This record gives sequence, structure tokens and C-alpha cells, in this order.
Amino acid sequence: MKKRITLLGGGSWGTALAKLLSENGHMVTVWLRDEEQCRELTTERENKKYLPGVIIPDNIVFTSQINESLKDAEYILIVTPTQKIRSVLKQINSEYKKNKIIINASKGIEMGTMCLVSDIVREETEDCIFADLTGPSIAKEVVAKMPTAITVACEDKKAASEIQDMFMSSYFRVYTNDDVVGAELGGALKNIIALGAGISDGIGYGDNAKAALMNRGIVEIARLGIAMGADVETFFGLSGIGDLMVTCMSKFSRNWNAGYLIGQGYSKEEAAKKVGMVVEGISTTYAAYELSKKLNVEMPIVNAMYDLLQNNADVKETVNKLMLRDKKEEKL
Amino acid sequence: MKKRITLLGGGSWGTALAKLLSENGHMVTVWLRDEEQCRELTTERENKKYLPGVIIPDNIVFTSQINESLKDAEYILIVTPTQKIRSVLKQINSEYKKNKIIINASKGIEMGTMCLVSDIVREETEDCIFADLTGPSIAKEVVAKMPTAITVACEDKKAASEIQDMFMSSYFRVYTNDDVVGAELGGALKNIIALGAGISDGIGYGDNAKAALMNRGIVEIARLGIAMGADVETFFGLSGIGDLMVTCMSKFSRNWNAGYLIGQGYSKEEAAKKVGMVVEGISTTYAAYELSKKLNVEMPIVNAMYDLLQNNADVKETVNKLMLRDKKEEKL
Repeated sequence: MKKRITLLGGGSWGTALAKLLSENGHMVTVWLRDEEQCRELTTERENKKYLPGVIIPDNIVFTSQINESLKDAEYILIVTPTQKIRSVLKQINSEYKKNKIIINASKGIEMGTMCLVSDIVREETEDCIFADLTGPSIAKEVVAKMPTAITVACEDKKAASEIQDMFMSSYFRVYTNDDVVGAELGGALKNIIALGAGISDGIGYGDNAKAALMNRGIVEIARLGIAMGADVETFFGLSGIGDLMVTCMSKFSRNWNAGYLIGQGYSKEEAAKKVGMVVEGISTTYAAYELSKKLNVEMPIVNAMYDLLQNNADVKETVNKLMLRDKKEEKL
Repeated sequence: MKKRITLLGGGSWGTALAKLLSENGHMVTVWLRDEEQCRELTTERENKKYLPGVIIPDNIVFTSQINESLKDAEYILIVTPTQKIRSVLKQINSEYKKNKIIINASKGIEMGTMCLVSDIVREETEDCIFADLTGPSIAKEVVAKMPTAITVACEDKKAASEIQDMFMSSYFRVYTNDDVVGAELGGALKNIIALGAGISDGIGYGDNAKAALMNRGIVEIARLGIAMGADVETFFGLSGIGDLMVTCMSKFSRNWNAGYLIGQGYSKEEAAKKVGMVVEGISTTYAAYELSKKLNVEMPIVNAMYDLLQNNADVKETVNKLMLRDKKEEKL
């Protein structure tokens, strides 16, 4: 069935999802803050800045009027950077953010408030159903129609199933999951481990070290997740280890790249500058460190990352400490 | 405490473990079938065939007399290729394979019998404690003293803890686990997924596809494992997803390489010939396929791999079928 969906934001992931939804036969509107960009996308049908070379289907509508864009929408798809979601939602008249199904495709924790996106949406909208769309999904591969599998996490089974139908295609497989907090936490916290994997590669360690870090990293993230009410299984699914794997394998990951530079001896400030974009893994490390203290969860890798980033600890010494701490059972 | 350990076999992994144990202060004997190779290793202190450039510590003893090698051993470390373990154990006098702690560091399923190494050891020895040493561990990185973390699975807690102490060092961290079957199954069946990841890369699919395959692959392996009495957690640990990650990241994996060639259009016979070694992933696919039928476990990726390898199914069509089958929840 044809659905009416409005996207808030139009970066590379937003553009890829808009194209997919349009090709699946839905009516897609994209809201962008920038009027000039709207005009360009409308006439040129190409997102030169974020996804050059990809033709945008003719029936996708671009507008810079946020309330106008939401008038007839049944679904709102959030593809705004996490730190800006609250201010975007505040711009919407209350009648247009009521009784909708809101799908979030952004990852991260709001700095200052430590809110997940589901928390922000709960606070800023009324009677909406929240779903999180997450998993290993490089935008360039999706627009090239390469096989991709992803999860939609939603407590409402009917909405989850509708969203699954809406996105699913021969190259885009969608699984449903009812653990929203687990899906959001995995997507946000994996950047800490991607940053760590970059440091390990940058200092010249091998694949054994990287695999161990990724594996033990997701285990301690799962431990934190359990303390926050998530299901352990979610962290070993597409939104957790699946997304972590793609982030650590792809050389496009800015978190991995920033880590690589730190491993090679750059300061975190120099690394962030060289990468030229926000490195979420750094602020997320601080957030996870605070959460682990507050909830009394053992997170040795997060502690080590905090030591490296905050106290400029020596990388090799930090790894040594990690390797030689108390002997453990391999349990959660 | 100083332990007396005899290794059965001396390939690259055996040589790496012998060196590690010797450097940890233990008394290490290595049995090799080939007398000439024993002489060469004894005099030249270098395993030119399997681990060139690495100096072998002076106090490691090499011998081709298997019973002689086991006279004073407290621990037997199996580093023989899986298909040869039974015949090697049959050569040992019963008095020397009684009341020992046997540590297995080989991965795979015995063809024909479908036995795990623990089954073979149970059948061919008497009153021994069995432990499985497994995880993401490329031999070259271990001899280069790069950080590595691994699991020892053993039902006997005391033995597990002794083995943990025996191997642990500043660059080699050992976790204990009591799920032997889970550890063995993960190590063996991961080769199916590594082969599949190679096919996906060979045909030109991206990192989304590879991450999804690895993630959903380990989920169905876990499903089979549960039906065989293993703990689900084990498959998401170092012996399962951890080992799978290193296998899929490292270009040295012969399973990944064989898959890559198949993805590029070579037949499985040509691929195996080009790789020049046994490709366990192929025979393991057949074994897992039979097990899944027998135990009535849903394994769509194993079925697809079986179709590709046995029925020469078209890769893209097979992927299409996988992507478009029934919509699912993301559950085990």
C-alpha cells in the first residue's frame, strides 16, 4: 500500500532512503532547512554534496517549509544529525507531530541530556509511535542496490510490520525487533569501539587484536544495555555487532579514521580536525563512561578509551593493562 | 608453575603455541611424524615451511617417537589437522593417553563420522579431561607478540583455570568458558560463513552484505548449536563471532579466498585447486546441511551455500531468494 512519508533531513542516508521508498511506490516528501538546496535538488535531481552521481526519482518532493511538509504525512522519518533533532522537532506545530508513526534513522546520544532519540521524540511530540531503523547500511551501497539487511525496532508490532513492508525490497531486507532501547544503544555506542579499532590498527596491531576488541567491546556494551533495560540478544544482532562490523571494515568510517590517526600519534583534536567532521565516538565514550559509573557496570574497554582520550594515557601501556587485568570467565 | 606439555603436530599454530608456552616457562615437547623435519627443527631452530623467520626457543624438544614424547606429559596439546586426529591418537599406547588433560587447538568436524574433536578424544582416550582452545588467533600475529584474546572451553573448572594460567601473558589473554560443544561448533562452522563472505566479496557486493551475512550466519549457527546442547552466548563470544570476524577480515583465510574465487566465477574444484589447500568450509557446509535437516533447524544461509556448492546455483539468484524470503523477526 502507498504510504505518505516525510523525511526530516536529506544527507546521504536520507537521500538513499528517500530513493528506496519512492522506488517502492510510496509518496515521499523531504524537508530541508536550506531553501537554496531544495531548489537545486528539485531542478537538478542530484544531491551533489552528499550523494553525487545518484539520480533522484522525479516524484520526490523537496521543501523548506517544515509544517507544510508534514500536513499529509502518515510517517515521519528522522534523518537529522542527533544533536539537532530536538531543535528541529521544536519547529513543528503540535498538530503535525501528533498521532504519527515516527521512524528514526539517526544514531547517537544527545549530549548534555544523555537522551536517546526515543527520549527526545517522547518529550517533543504527542501520542506518536516510535520506531528505530538501524543496522549495517552504508548509503552508497544501498543506492547501488547492493544487498543490505537492517532492523526496525518498535514496541508496536503492527507499526513494525508496516514499516518492514514499506522498506523491504529485493536488495533491502528488513527484520523486526521489539527492543528499541537495545537497538538505539548499540547504534550509538558502537562508535566507541570503532574508534578503538582504529587506534589498534593505527598503532600497528593485527586482526587478532581488532577482533578481540570488537567482540569484548560489544559484550560490555551489552552489559550496560541490560542495566538500562535492553535485551542482550539485540546487541548481537544487526543493530549491534552487525553495525559494528560494517563500521570497522569500511575505510569510510570517520570514527575508525579518527582512531587510526590517534593510534599513529595525533592528539584527539588533531585527529578530529583531519577527519573534518564530528567524531561521535569521542563524546560517546564520555557518555558511556558516565553511564557505567552511574549504573555500576564493569566496562574495561570504555575505561581504557576514556583514559586515552581524557588523560592522554599511553596506548601501549593502556593495552597492556587491559590484557593483564584479572583473569575472567567469558561471560556477560 | 612449570608444566610438562606435549604437542601433537607442529604446523604454524602449533609452533606459535609451543613458543608461547616455552616463553611462559613451561617444558615443551613437540611430536612430529616426520623424522627429517624433527632433525631440521632441532638443529636449525626455525620452522621454514610453516613459520619462516621465527626463532624457536632452545628448550623446546622435537621428537618423532610419539609414545616417547608423551611419557612425562601432564598435558597433551592437539594441533593436528582434524581429519588426522583419530589416526594419531590410535598410535599412542593406552598408558600414555589415560588421566591426562587434553587441550585441542584444531577446528573442524570429522568427515564421515560427523564427530567433533571432543567426541574423537572421548572415543580414543581414557579418563582424560578435554579442553578446547579457540578464538581469533592468526599465528603470525601471536609470534609477533601482538595482542590476542582467546577462550579455553572446559567443563572442569580447575583444569580450565590451570590452562588459563599456562597460556596467559602480556599479549595473550585467555578467558574460560564451560561450553565445550558451543566453542567447537563455532570454530568449525564459521568456515561456512567465511566461504560465503568470500563469495559475496568476489561477486562485488559491499560491506553491508558481508556484515549481514556474518551476523545472520552466526545467528543460524547458534540456532543449530542450541539444538545440539550448546549455550547461545558462546556463539557471540571469541570462539564464535570473534573468530568469524578475524577470518573474514584477514586476506590469509583460505576459506575466504576460495569463496572469493567462486564469487568471481570459478567452480569449487578450480577454487580449491587455486587456493592449494583443503577448503574446510566446503565439507563443513555439507555437514551443517545434514545436521540442520536431521535436527530440523532453519538455516537459510547454509541451505543457500549448499545450493551454490552442490547444485551450482547462480549466486545472484540465490542471494535474491535469501533476501526475499518470508519477513522475519530478528530473533534466534
